[in-house]
Amino acid sequence: MPRILYHTPLSPSCRALRILLREKNVEFTLIAENTWERRVIVSRYAISEYVEETYSTPPFMGKTPEERLEVRRLVDWFDRKFHAEVTHNILVEKIFKRLDWGEGPDSQVMKAGRQNLLYHLDYIAFLTETRSFLAGDALSFADMIAAGHLSALDYLGDVPWDYNPRVKEWYALIKSRPSFRTILTDRFGGYRPPEYYENPDF
Amino acid sequence: MPRILYHTPLSPSCRALRILLREKNVEFTLIAENTWERRVIVSRYAISEYVEETYSTPPFMGKTPEERLEVRRLVDWFDRKFHAEVTHNILVEKIFKRLDWGEGPDSQVMKAGRQNLLYHLDYIAFLTETRSFLAGDALSFADMIAAGHLSALDYLGDVPWDYNPRVKEWYALIKSRPSFRTILTDRFGGYRPPEYYENPDF
Repeated sequence: MPRILYHTPLSPSCRALRILLREKNVEFTLIAENTWERRVIVSRYAISEYVEETYSTPPFMGKTPEERLEVRRLVDWFDRKFHAEVTHNILVEKIFKRLDWGEGPDSQVMKAGRQNLLYHLDYIAFLTETRSFLAGDALSFADMIAAGHLSALDYLGDVPWDYNPRVKEWYALIKSRPSFRTILTDRFGGYRPPEYYENPDF
Repeated sequence: MPRILYHTPLSPSCRALRILLREKNVEFTLIAENTWERRVIVSRYAISEYVEETYSTPPFMGKTPEERLEVRRLVDWFDRKFHAEVTHNILVEKIFKRLDWGEGPDSQVMKAGRQNLLYHLDYIAFLTETRSFLAGDALSFADMIAAGHLSALDYLGDVPWDYNPRVKEWYALIKSRPSFRTILTDRFGGYRPPEYYENPDF
């Protein structure tokens, strides 16, 4: 029986879980969750650890304790720090404030988000200077979470890809994976992503 | 060689990690971190999973995949939801706003935090109606995180223990554990906790 994943299309965490499940070849049905119903949904953290334990091959949380520490450190980096400093400031302002409260975006908040994004891009560039992927030489859940955030922002045209060629190169690697395809073909309400959004050779 | 844990005294996550390490009998040295230096510290999530994997006995994240899902669901509940709705509104307003920016508390924000706390206490009462501890019949990291948050708020006198006797009973269980002792004897700057703060039979 296939698993069910309740999701919202632009949520970075949901995107990361979809990539994880596909990379592990787990069959699942995607059901869009109506967030305004405010149902209690099991968290991304609990699900990702459950999936890693239950479908252990291939591993995406690292193999040794030290690798696993590094993957989780970076997962938390993107899921908390990047989220609070960048994604929240842009995605909530641009999309969810209108949907949830009928309010327009605060341009100062979005500006802060875009400014913060630059040093996070520097950090990705720094990590990939010595590694093929964010947490080491193998694809990990850290890449999936980071790509989940960046792809949601990219849908809104908010990632300056020319800022650092190394970041673009790393993201192209992720973008070209079959596990990422259905995420890039998703469309959200009346919003259209930029032309290069789906293109792995953007 | 003992491990080093960098911490801040009123941080719920640090408190939870201290309980976890002591319950696992891991020797460690505690070093107070100067948060204003904004150093990058490995996250609570990465550390707690590392500790559980490296010192696996006794287990505090559940034994079966389903138990582990439930522990992690509740850890995330307290570390994100409770934090955002309660702890942040009270602790940041009362303490960190003054320390970090020299500003006084916003009484509306604190009121919202205290109001939100009540339904979280209801939730703890609901969970412990059928279970000895939050995630099941054994002490888990979910209890440690929840107690980390509640003890930090309790230090400030902000937990209405008479609201629900079941919550008080559960917290008394945690409070009476030797792993919790040094946390309760910690003092923070000029702040004095309420008289009952250290007392397991409060």
